[in-house]
Amino acid sequence: MKLRTDRVIERLNALAAISDTTNCIDRAYGTEAHTASGDLLMTWMSKAGLHTKRDTIGNIKGVLSSKVVDAKHFIIGSHYDTVFDAGKYDGPLGILLGLEMAQYIINNDLPIPFHLNVIAFADEEGSRFNTAYLGSSAIAGFFEKSWLQRKDDEGISLQTVIQKNSGISSNIDSESISKENCLGYFEAHIEQGPVLCNENLPVCLVNGIASQTRVDVHWTGISGHAGTYPMNQRNDALCAAAEFALAVESIGKEHQTKLVATIGKLNVIPNTPNVIPGKVEHTLDIRSLDDNFLMEVGQILEQRAKEISKERKVNLVWNIMQTNTSVQCDKNLKRCLKTGIEKAGIRQVLEISSGAGHDAVMISKIAPVSMLFVRCKDGISHNPLEYVTPEDIEKSLEVCDNFIKELIHQNS
Amino acid sequence: MKLRTDRVIERLNALAAISDTTNCIDRAYGTEAHTASGDLLMTWMSKAGLHTKRDTIGNIKGVLSSKVVDAKHFIIGSHYDTVFDAGKYDGPLGILLGLEMAQYIINNDLPIPFHLNVIAFADEEGSRFNTAYLGSSAIAGFFEKSWLQRKDDEGISLQTVIQKNSGISSNIDSESISKENCLGYFEAHIEQGPVLCNENLPVCLVNGIASQTRVDVHWTGISGHAGTYPMNQRNDALCAAAEFALAVESIGKEHQTKLVATIGKLNVIPNTPNVIPGKVEHTLDIRSLDDNFLMEVGQILEQRAKEISKERKVNLVWNIMQTNTSVQCDKNLKRCLKTGIEKAGIRQVLEISSGAGHDAVMISKIAPVSMLFVRCKDGISHNPLEYVTPEDIEKSLEVCDNFIKELIHQNS
Repeated sequence: MKLRTDRVIERLNALAAISDTTNCIDRAYGTEAHTASGDLLMTWMSKAGLHTKRDTIGNIKGVLSSKVVDAKHFIIGSHYDTVFDAGKYDGPLGILLGLEMAQYIINNDLPIPFHLNVIAFADEEGSRFNTAYLGSSAIAGFFEKSWLQRKDDEGISLQTVIQKNSGISSNIDSESISKENCLGYFEAHIEQGPVLCNENLPVCLVNGIASQTRVDVHWTGISGHAGTYPMNQRNDALCAAAEFALAVESIGKEHQTKLVATIGKLNVIPNTPNVIPGKVEHTLDIRSLDDNFLMEVGQILEQRAKEISKERKVNLVWNIMQTNTSVQCDKNLKRCLKTGIEKAGIRQVLEISSGAGHDAVMISKIAPVSMLFVRCKDGISHNPLEYVTPEDIEKSLEVCDNFIKELIHQNS
Repeated sequence: MKLRTDRVIERLNALAAISDTTNCIDRAYGTEAHTASGDLLMTWMSKAGLHTKRDTIGNIKGVLSSKVVDAKHFIIGSHYDTVFDAGKYDGPLGILLGLEMAQYIINNDLPIPFHLNVIAFADEEGSRFNTAYLGSSAIAGFFEKSWLQRKDDEGISLQTVIQKNSGISSNIDSESISKENCLGYFEAHIEQGPVLCNENLPVCLVNGIASQTRVDVHWTGISGHAGTYPMNQRNDALCAAAEFALAVESIGKEHQTKLVATIGKLNVIPNTPNVIPGKVEHTLDIRSLDDNFLMEVGQILEQRAKEISKERKVNLVWNIMQTNTSVQCDKNLKRCLKTGIEKAGIRQVLEISSGAGHDAVMISKIAPVSMLFVRCKDGISHNPLEYVTPEDIEKSLEVCDNFIKELIHQNS
């Protein structure tokens, strides 16, 4: 196991060294570094003995075929694009663990009842075209043609990038895996949160991926001279927003086992020390595994905002910008993963929900999905400080091997 | 009175037409428009029969001498510089009312027991050199030599501007009026707040000018992924600031007869919708007529901030940036002004404190001061929408005439 751990770490470092920007990790979709890292992944997949292919959108697929007639596909994957100034583990760890799982099957000459697809998805972060899941949406057959017209900050369209790198964009449709042919999906990913650190566990099961609602909230009061407007004649937009921020925090804490609620961005207008804030604009991000509960929370918070607006005579605008429904992880796959964790001798099989989105969200449209979270230091991610210990990588490898063995057993 | 009201309005319009910027009022200290408006004020003062002079800093003085031996000086003034995109009334109204008071004395051939000084102060707003009260500080003998080295946004020093416009800066010291020779000061000014509008009164007495403390407050928590950090493991800097903002508002409302408290500027870092705010920086502006009470409020709020910091494990930095002590208006002068208001048939003699600073702050160092506030529409100021009705200007003229008559009577 030590040798395989070292190989995973070497490969994480090799990928981290490929970047479009000096002194930091930066591989946005379709750039030179992105393509080069895809090339490297292909050589590793080929070397392992997988049938390897780059599809039109840029996903790198390595397939280990089953000898069973009419076998379905099982997908193991994660993404190889990164945010700007990224860490080494977000995405690549899941790909490399997948590759080690294929290697384990090959080395042990295990007969597989499904075609094993190790996929390095081309785009999950969406840093370049402000779209998440470009890669997995192509695999799931949910790639939208209109996305081809999207342009990056330099005015280059996705269509142009595809034509230059991979070929004819109209081929994307024919490269998906159908729901009928797909047995399931597994993804290992760093947690990007502090739970495993606090629980002192190397890995855990993922219940599901939260639904998310994003609201833009605008408060419009009356600005005025901070020295001349008496307190009882003010319509201070910042005080209204402050009261609402505490209401958001309060409902989040009240339901903390199933809800996170955040105001991450807030702007004051005119934002001058001696002027009472006339306007405040802020975001609201609420997430839960329970779609109905999330909708209910959204309504409660909107109602609370309306009350604050009325009491304070500060005008309210409530704009729902985005709503994604939740993804539940598959019971059978979770059972296999639980067995995998238990057999690795981990003292507790913790289950948590993912507040962050992952490629599993898109693949869930065609297959039952499962995810393993791996502890990352202090929960820090999207940051060069992102770190997973060699010990945790070794433990994850053991869990992954156990999982794939159990999955083969279940389906044979 | 109608004719004098019309003259004040004509002159307000004539001054408003002199600007460094097209389509808005803009007369920062020492610019071409600023000098031209000073020239116009000089011609009006001369025409009224005052001995007129521009001093080194650029104040325009019109003096009506007393025949009494050893008469002291009484000053009536306001400023003729403006902020960018200003209104017509902030400053000029007080100068023009002062000029009408001199005119009233001259027209009625009243013997005066003091030398009447109508002064148009060169700089009160401090828009160009980030210093308030350049003009009145020269009159009070509190002009600081170090200010001469201050530079505007284009790198031109105050020294250079003075040399170009008015002469030798070392003369400033010799142009002040000494405390021994100064009987008192009167300034009429628009309220720049909503009290007179809400009370439906044209004018009111000013009690005094508030002391002011400005604090920079920094909260540092831990930023994190809005989807992956459970609510009970957060150190959200924005929630800490929100709790503090409501504490500020609460203490302000609790003591609203003697305190205003404002967070006018607030910045969130990194200010991203899906990231828990790691840092919030904001201002705190508190003002009161009662210096000791203001200090006490500052201490209470600092204590409250420390408690919030401790409870939430969000680090606090508390930086006091500025503290100005309050100015109390003179009892005798207030009595004269009260008589003036009563004789004008105004149903109520309201007394309010000024939260905004005025030239009276600087002149209070050498003389008892008094101020009359004039209603401005909706309390709006520093804005082209600034407006005073002709009826209120007429009423103010009447009050001013009554006041100067009473003052002459008291001192004769």
